[in-house]
Amino acid sequence: MRAALDAARAASETGEVPVGAVVVRDGRIVATAANAPRKLNDPTAHAEIRAIRDAAKVLGRDRLIDCDLWVTLEPCAMCAGAIAHARIARLYYGASDPKGGAVEHGPRFFEQATCHHRPEIFPGIGEGEAAALLRDFFALKR
Amino acid sequence: MRAALDAARAASETGEVPVGAVVVRDGRIVATAANAPRKLNDPTAHAEIRAIRDAAKVLGRDRLIDCDLWVTLEPCAMCAGAIAHARIARLYYGASDPKGGAVEHGPRFFEQATCHHRPEIFPGIGEGEAAALLRDFFALKR
Repeated sequence: MRAALDAARAASETGEVPVGAVVVRDGRIVATAANAPRKLNDPTAHAEIRAIRDAAKVLGRDRLIDCDLWVTLEPCAMCAGAIAHARIARLYYGASDPKGGAVEHGPRFFEQATCHHRPEIFPGIGEGEAAALLRDFFALKR
Repeated sequence: MRAALDAARAASETGEVPVGAVVVRDGRIVATAANAPRKLNDPTAHAEIRAIRDAAKVLGRDRLIDCDLWVTLEPCAMCAGAIAHARIARLYYGASDPKGGAVEHGPRFFEQATCHHRPEIFPGIGEGEAAALLRDFFALKR
């Protein structure tokens, strides 16, 4: 989660909402990414999507059944869907997101009968620091 | 929808689940894409995600507020989330998808309070042909 928080901080410095994600396999980082939809002109460029895409490219396959995802914020519906498609084994996340989260809020995607794969889920990891990064970012924007 | 169905057929011929998507702006096609997670080693490479990413790149911005998306199958949670993030104006889709759809099934994403943008939605466009492509594809797989 340290690497994910560092990526989130880096996103913040480029004016993006500070969220970072890391894909880990066998205790090693396969991919690290920050949220970057504005910089990349890509509405799908959330940290989770970027980290999953990079990890799949590195490993040369579209399923990451032996990989875990660490992300600083509760994933949205888009990212929760991508996590299921990628068959991520374990999901660790930091701050919860009542406004856009889709794990414990809104669609509660992984609890739906239409969800084909549910990772093991560990919320609240590094929550304080992840939430502080977001709070400081939006305070500066006001 | 004709272009989206052609893209779906092309996907089928490369062994991918036949789904196609097109982004349209001012009556012109901005981007066309087929489902290609296996070919690209990318679990996020659904037709909708690819078409949205390509259109955003072509237009040089991360919001497609003046664009419509045509897709041959009811979008999943990942794609519905991306459609909301991209601020797509109108969503036209073909076959409904009781197993993985997230518009009229499962999470019913656009009806959630946590959904920040809801396009106008037109289901059932070209439904017969879209469904037949999928049916034939899975029949061959068995």
